[in-house]
Amino acid sequence: MTESLFKIQHTDVPLSYYTGLLGMPGMTDYADFYELCSPKKGEYVLVSSAFGAVGQLVGQLAKLMGCYVVGSAESKEKIDILKSKFGFDEAFNYKEEHDLDAALKRCFPEGIDICFDNVGGKMLDAVLLNMRFHSRIAVAGMISEYNLDQPEGIRNLLSLVYKRIRIEGFTVYDYYHLFPNFLDLVLPYIREGKIAYVEDTAEGLKNGPSALVGIFSGQNVGKQAVVVARE
Amino acid sequence: MTESLFKIQHTDVPLSYYTGLLGMPGMTDYADFYELCSPKKGEYVLVSSAFGAVGQLVGQLAKLMGCYVVGSAESKEKIDILKSKFGFDEAFNYKEEHDLDAALKRCFPEGIDICFDNVGGKMLDAVLLNMRFHSRIAVAGMISEYNLDQPEGIRNLLSLVYKRIRIEGFTVYDYYHLFPNFLDLVLPYIREGKIAYVEDTAEGLKNGPSALVGIFSGQNVGKQAVVVARE
Repeated sequence: MTESLFKIQHTDVPLSYYTGLLGMPGMTDYADFYELCSPKKGEYVLVSSAFGAVGQLVGQLAKLMGCYVVGSAESKEKIDILKSKFGFDEAFNYKEEHDLDAALKRCFPEGIDICFDNVGGKMLDAVLLNMRFHSRIAVAGMISEYNLDQPEGIRNLLSLVYKRIRIEGFTVYDYYHLFPNFLDLVLPYIREGKIAYVEDTAEGLKNGPSALVGIFSGQNVGKQAVVVARE
Repeated sequence: MTESLFKIQHTDVPLSYYTGLLGMPGMTDYADFYELCSPKKGEYVLVSSAFGAVGQLVGQLAKLMGCYVVGSAESKEKIDILKSKFGFDEAFNYKEEHDLDAALKRCFPEGIDICFDNVGGKMLDAVLLNMRFHSRIAVAGMISEYNLDQPEGIRNLLSLVYKRIRIEGFTVYDYYHLFPNFLDLVLPYIREGKIAYVEDTAEGLKNGPSALVGIFSGQNVGKQAVVVARE
């Protein structure tokens, strides 16, 4: 797909950013959030899997727009970083919540306007119970489902009718034509320190295999990059 | 809700039509189909529960637009009327299909662009496997779920991501401002015989209770109306 090949013009930011924040995951955030979710100032935004390479940016873009933003992640360390470094208003560790519906009601007493979902499964089912009228769910992935023999059933879709919710699936491949707009928006924010980014960098090809294995046990913090050589 | 009260101006069509084809169910079809589904000539359209008061019109509107239209219903009589009277290209009796996925693949070898769904449950799950890229599912109801203690789980939502599908819930109450446009479109079609309508009319209030009971055993053909008095 030639549209996804491009020459990097801006080398004043770390090159590795182009594998994450400024690459496919970042573009996914950007296009998904602005094109599908139609965010408005003051809206309530949930980012599930907020610490993933796709999830990191969207919460910060939503904050920059004046939204109230809550993220979920799977460790205390990541929750802390979401709030302290990325400026999320609230964050919760979904592994420690016995009742996801109750966790969402605690974080969103007014309900959710936009859910940027990368998880699916039980999280999506709880989300459906907490969406507001005319709210939007952008589905960029369903990581809770990929390794199951049979996907979990989603039982609360009737909320779609009662609350006129829109769910839309999304892949970045439809939006590469927006890549220049994306860089125009995000590069200045990075240079001004308004958007933070956390990635895990392994040095040298010999450390690649262990970095790969680490992804599947959740050892990485943010996008896992392997630096083959530094010029 | 005052917006839903209006004086009937056009009495050259049966008054009972305003309880179905020209009332809330018809408006639901119209707004749902044009506002949410963005139909284009030549697209493949499935109307689940095609014989219901909501489902009858949308297939005919889709045919008038040049779409290929398939409906599902629950009896041979209704299937026959869908094809002979309403002009659907194909129709199937979902009660006689052991494998809904196979039935949809038979009717839509190219896949589905628009699904107007009023059923949910197993039908929606099979539909998700047969949607095309960038297709749309408008959910006006989930009649298969209303009487279950626990809703059936929908397992195929991952198709949303792979195929960039949009699902949107819908109620007519958001669209009453379009009622004059709706009548402007549909009344001429009815007068010209381009849109057919089937309803079940019980005469006299004393026949109301048995008509009501009949709805729940599927005895009615189309909207069940009770004529209290004819002027």
